[in-house]
Amino acid sequence: MALWFSEQASDGHRLEWKIQKMLYSGQSPYQTIEVLDTEAFGPSLVLDGIMQTTTGDEFIYHEMLAWVPLATHPHPERVLIIGGGDGGLARDVLRSPDVKEVHLVEIDPLVVEVSRTYLHRHVAAFDDPRLSLITADGMEYLKRPDIPAYDVILVDSTDPEGTGPGAVLYTPAFHQRVFSALAPDGLYVQQTGTPIYNPEVLKEASHSVAEIFPLCRVYWCSVPTYPGGFFTFTSGSKVHDLARPSRTASMPQGEWYTPEIHRAAFALPPMIERLIPPSARLSSASGANV
Amino acid sequence: MALWFSEQASDGHRLEWKIQKMLYSGQSPYQTIEVLDTEAFGPSLVLDGIMQTTTGDEFIYHEMLAWVPLATHPHPERVLIIGGGDGGLARDVLRSPDVKEVHLVEIDPLVVEVSRTYLHRHVAAFDDPRLSLITADGMEYLKRPDIPAYDVILVDSTDPEGTGPGAVLYTPAFHQRVFSALAPDGLYVQQTGTPIYNPEVLKEASHSVAEIFPLCRVYWCSVPTYPGGFFTFTSGSKVHDLARPSRTASMPQGEWYTPEIHRAAFALPPMIERLIPPSARLSSASGANV
Repeated sequence: MALWFSEQASDGHRLEWKIQKMLYSGQSPYQTIEVLDTEAFGPSLVLDGIMQTTTGDEFIYHEMLAWVPLATHPHPERVLIIGGGDGGLARDVLRSPDVKEVHLVEIDPLVVEVSRTYLHRHVAAFDDPRLSLITADGMEYLKRPDIPAYDVILVDSTDPEGTGPGAVLYTPAFHQRVFSALAPDGLYVQQTGTPIYNPEVLKEASHSVAEIFPLCRVYWCSVPTYPGGFFTFTSGSKVHDLARPSRTASMPQGEWYTPEIHRAAFALPPMIERLIPPSARLSSASGANV
Repeated sequence: MALWFSEQASDGHRLEWKIQKMLYSGQSPYQTIEVLDTEAFGPSLVLDGIMQTTTGDEFIYHEMLAWVPLATHPHPERVLIIGGGDGGLARDVLRSPDVKEVHLVEIDPLVVEVSRTYLHRHVAAFDDPRLSLITADGMEYLKRPDIPAYDVILVDSTDPEGTGPGAVLYTPAFHQRVFSALAPDGLYVQQTGTPIYNPEVLKEASHSVAEIFPLCRVYWCSVPTYPGGFFTFTSGSKVHDLARPSRTASMPQGEWYTPEIHRAAFALPPMIERLIPPSARLSSASGANV
């Protein structure tokens, strides 16, 4: 008997993965957690029924979320990750030799425990002495009076829809806290999903970030695992423009990221660009000055 | 009862669309032909069980296949389309005011007839006086002694796998015929699918084209309908480099295409770039000179 995991991209479209084995199934105070061994992409983490990360194509998402900001900031020494309990993002952040310290704030310790057991390609970072793992809610962590100033803050979370713990990470109140926690030339990136199916996530996050940060930019990549293929990131920056990076040549050799891919990722099709605020647009088609 | 159409991206991954209505189902001498009214993307053409084009996202594929070569060639007056019987590519080719003449060579007249009846957004080109519809096998057409020299030749076909009529359009013998049918500064593009799941199609086509043409370039876009999101085109050119276009500003306003998207589309991730011949690579990661 063949087992298939099915995920709805929208009411009328779904993606399915053939399952070789259910490796883990459990429930934390925050969400249901499953690890499925998929035939196409190997062991894969599913939270509240949504595919989060697969062993086979996770590098696309993680390289782009980690290295686009790290190639832009001139001295990205102290990095905060909110979410990312599977370890994949922290691993790629720590592959940049400039990074001296990573604070990983994950609300759900069971995600970390399960990832360490089953997602072997993700979790090398947990043994890196530069990593500190903090079990906390991201919003509450940013309210602490004693946290240091960060050069880069990354949010690697579940989508804001539904009842999961990711929803608060897309609000203006959260973006204001991120701004305050950043150093005077700090920058910020979060995943904003697939605008083909969920345009509101990109639209609301980019407008919120553009209200609070001097610079807002949106970039994209194509991840087979995520419905629609077209996947976006929204960034806020105090000084440095992520679309004009200064240090791409110092990044590691990736499977997806190159200096050319970095620059190309900021070219948005008009159907996507019109979702974001005019100040965040780069294209000549939008009428903005480049 | 909800009906779902299911397509296998690979043995272990599939995409499914909810069907509101089966609009047409028939069989030609070449293939089975179905038109499904999908909830997510409207009326959609399915050939031999494979989703070819949907009303909701067809513009991404058609703009990129039409306008990247048309923005590169300095005077793209005479264009040959092989395949493309649904009419969408011819429509976007004819939106470029430089184009004076389009010859559309489709092997299967039933695809044209069904598209004219059900795919209303695709088919305006069939009433354009610049279009000539020719019912013929593409390879056989190129052997005719009396065909004119073309500025641009585009192949818009089914994938080469399986038993459909698209297979011959990916062979060196066909590429040699295309080369001979082009004017001295002519150029050529064909779709080469999703290398995430079918790397051999891109690999074999790009090596064949690079053997025959002075310039081979590969570019990509992200189409929700096509499994994996990441979708490639392979081009051959006698003189003009598609990665360095001269006339992007003269292209129509699209929903996907912009001058920046044109240039960005040639930045390939290393996992894709290593499939194509070294002479076709642009990236610094490949070690080639840019």
